[in-house]
Amino acid sequence: MRDTGNPSIAALRERIARGELTHEALIQQVLEAAALPSAQHVFTKTYADAALAAARHADAAQKAGVQLGALAGLPVSVKDLYDVAGETTMAGSAVCEGEPPAARDAVAVARLRTQGAAIVGKTNMTEFAFSGVGINPHYGTPRNPADAGTPRIPGGSSSGAAVSVALGLAVAGLGSDTGGSIRIPAALCGLVGFKSTQSRVPRTGAFELARSLDTVCAMARSVEDCFVADAAIADAPLVVRRRPLRGLRLAVPRTLMFDGIEPAVARAFERSVQALSAAGAEVVEITLAELAEIASINAPGGFSPVEASAVHRERFAAKREGFDARVAARIALGTEVRAADYIVMQDRRRDWIDRVGHALEGFDALICPTVPIIAPPIASLAEDAAFFQANGLLLRNTFAINFLDGCAFSLPCHAPDELPVGLMLSSVRGDDARLAAVALAVEQALRFA
Amino acid sequence: MRDTGNPSIAALRERIARGELTHEALIQQVLEAAALPSAQHVFTKTYADAALAAARHADAAQKAGVQLGALAGLPVSVKDLYDVAGETTMAGSAVCEGEPPAARDAVAVARLRTQGAAIVGKTNMTEFAFSGVGINPHYGTPRNPADAGTPRIPGGSSSGAAVSVALGLAVAGLGSDTGGSIRIPAALCGLVGFKSTQSRVPRTGAFELARSLDTVCAMARSVEDCFVADAAIADAPLVVRRRPLRGLRLAVPRTLMFDGIEPAVARAFERSVQALSAAGAEVVEITLAELAEIASINAPGGFSPVEASAVHRERFAAKREGFDARVAARIALGTEVRAADYIVMQDRRRDWIDRVGHALEGFDALICPTVPIIAPPIASLAEDAAFFQANGLLLRNTFAINFLDGCAFSLPCHAPDELPVGLMLSSVRGDDARLAAVALAVEQALRFA
Repeated sequence: MRDTGNPSIAALRERIARGELTHEALIQQVLEAAALPSAQHVFTKTYADAALAAARHADAAQKAGVQLGALAGLPVSVKDLYDVAGETTMAGSAVCEGEPPAARDAVAVARLRTQGAAIVGKTNMTEFAFSGVGINPHYGTPRNPADAGTPRIPGGSSSGAAVSVALGLAVAGLGSDTGGSIRIPAALCGLVGFKSTQSRVPRTGAFELARSLDTVCAMARSVEDCFVADAAIADAPLVVRRRPLRGLRLAVPRTLMFDGIEPAVARAFERSVQALSAAGAEVVEITLAELAEIASINAPGGFSPVEASAVHRERFAAKREGFDARVAARIALGTEVRAADYIVMQDRRRDWIDRVGHALEGFDALICPTVPIIAPPIASLAEDAAFFQANGLLLRNTFAINFLDGCAFSLPCHAPDELPVGLMLSSVRGDDARLAAVALAVEQALRFA
Repeated sequence: MRDTGNPSIAALRERIARGELTHEALIQQVLEAAALPSAQHVFTKTYADAALAAARHADAAQKAGVQLGALAGLPVSVKDLYDVAGETTMAGSAVCEGEPPAARDAVAVARLRTQGAAIVGKTNMTEFAFSGVGINPHYGTPRNPADAGTPRIPGGSSSGAAVSVALGLAVAGLGSDTGGSIRIPAALCGLVGFKSTQSRVPRTGAFELARSLDTVCAMARSVEDCFVADAAIADAPLVVRRRPLRGLRLAVPRTLMFDGIEPAVARAFERSVQALSAAGAEVVEITLAELAEIASINAPGGFSPVEASAVHRERFAAKREGFDARVAARIALGTEVRAADYIVMQDRRRDWIDRVGHALEGFDALICPTVPIIAPPIASLAEDAAFFQANGLLLRNTFAINFLDGCAFSLPCHAPDELPVGLMLSSVRGDDARLAAVALAVEQALRFA
């Protein structure tokens, strides 16, 4: 994997154990770096005092010989859509201003605190998490750190989460993934994103986008670091049984996932497949024609627009002009959909999930590019037509796995001198632990640098 | 409890054990009685050969010293909405004619067969289970056996199920309860109906009315017999810890449940409360004002119309004129409801369930009349206005418990010379085992005869 210059959780723990660094000094560095121009628009809010207090607590506990929690005193960022007690959750919007404050922390946030994590701030995001681009008209758009030349999108909706991790301001970014919001920015920023099965982490206190799809999950610098974040927020940690790549069967779907792919992505993906094959994996092309059905099943309006239109019903009626117009346009697609069509959509999705599950029997993972394009320049998306076209491409592959109610990792698969490209490993609902072992083996084989 | 002249399961088992009766002779008697005019319109189909085969199998097993399943060789009826392999499930309709046959038995039916039950036939019902009256224009309306003079409705939608049990043609009637379809006919025919918590029994193979509410459950002659039926179909039997009535706290809700009550029902209910108090129960009146909110939460269209309109979407578009016009009118209420309104209905219901759960803390059961009226004469419901008014009254109290996602028993509480009146004991989701113990104690106290 490309070295982003930021140490892994294990490396940080070692430095701290050796006395080369204290938790407090680490958080102090992070807070200073968060104030630099490169981190502009990453946080919508920072918690300097609370993060420093968590760090000092970890230092004191360590001095006292107490076994530290895996994230104790380490910097973690939290997407703006999670409740923090006493604050109004804005979810990247302006229209929530003045709404009642949250009575308690979201479950995921509370679990991070229980681990002793130093929550450095709330990260910027697409308004209401409703696009894969990461542009936010209210709070600015964090710049993708992968390209020092051209300002490119970070991907979304967990835009600030990705940039916070890429810049070393957090060892893990708590985000969410409804259609790709963890994996897209992870892919575009060169990180590992783990969209776990929806049921792994309670959604209580997470601002809802689409209840059928919303997943509470995180991104980090490596697969191992994703496990640490997942273990902190999930009901139970994954039991990962490591295994070699040799003998794994990986399916490459020929339907949909490669349409409109950019040459840079195609090259990185093909090179990755060669590396995986060379390491002993069996890579098998399959048709998976079911992928072409997603659009027709969603045709009456789609889960996200329909469910979002319920969440925002009153707010939308009262303050539509205060919404990001591009988000409003997508919510509007759902407002007139009939309940019977929505229920039929649910039934068809259930049937589709069953059929895709059967088609994937005998494979250890589905592999494809996380996103078929590299991060476009922010300036190229000024027009709505370009924005919506890019948004469609960004979300297409990742959304298929949300639609499957599945789990997936996005792993960096580009060379050090290339812009980031993500390789997505996916599997069915509840297969997280097995897929995690595959992700570890694949990550090892993709260390091109 | 009033003696309907039909022995309990335990009494039948004893007679068979003493050699006074064989399973085969019992089923032979049942099949003969099912052909009498009094049983007209009870079954839409009978399974004479299969039922006799099950009976002979039970006789042979008994002779061989094999421990019999609780329902082995005993007559059981199955509502017309359960799949039986190889048959098209009609659900009391005409429009399903020609649709594909079921590939396998419904889960509840398969479980009855596993117990060795002699399934004597499929019972008549309201078309698509969509009314509490029990009138069926296609297959006729089974007559309520409680009144030899005036032909009265049996109640529905599990009309034939109730009459089959009341006439001794089945020891248990497998029915379903979406808004009261087990409890209403049980109340009007003088039986015990047990609407268990929805999640107790898998719905696979049950013709859907409303997925949020549909419950697979049964009615029988006594609370104990209901336990036997429930144990046969549920994932796990109830563990009932018997307890005396003394010390139980029973809540009588003063909102909604007593509106429009008929004097005969009021008398039976008041007499029952006196009997329960005399036996040591503490009966407490509570307001439970939340009951008045059901109508407004359901105002956008109601769960049953909305969800039924999804189930029947294609059938309704193609063959609406073939539907029972009264059922079609109710489905039509749901077709234009918007998905956002439906989702908001779900959220409001969830919040309502939480609040009612809190209001019921400290009580062992909620008690009220199952139905505020006695069974009306069939002839009195010829006009639509009278039909819909009666249907609303029939469903009102029972529906509140479906809306609660709760559990409930309807127990007979009339005197031997009165038309049947049901007393409903209800509690919250998952409280089935505790409520079952209350039902046993209450049943004992209501033996007025």
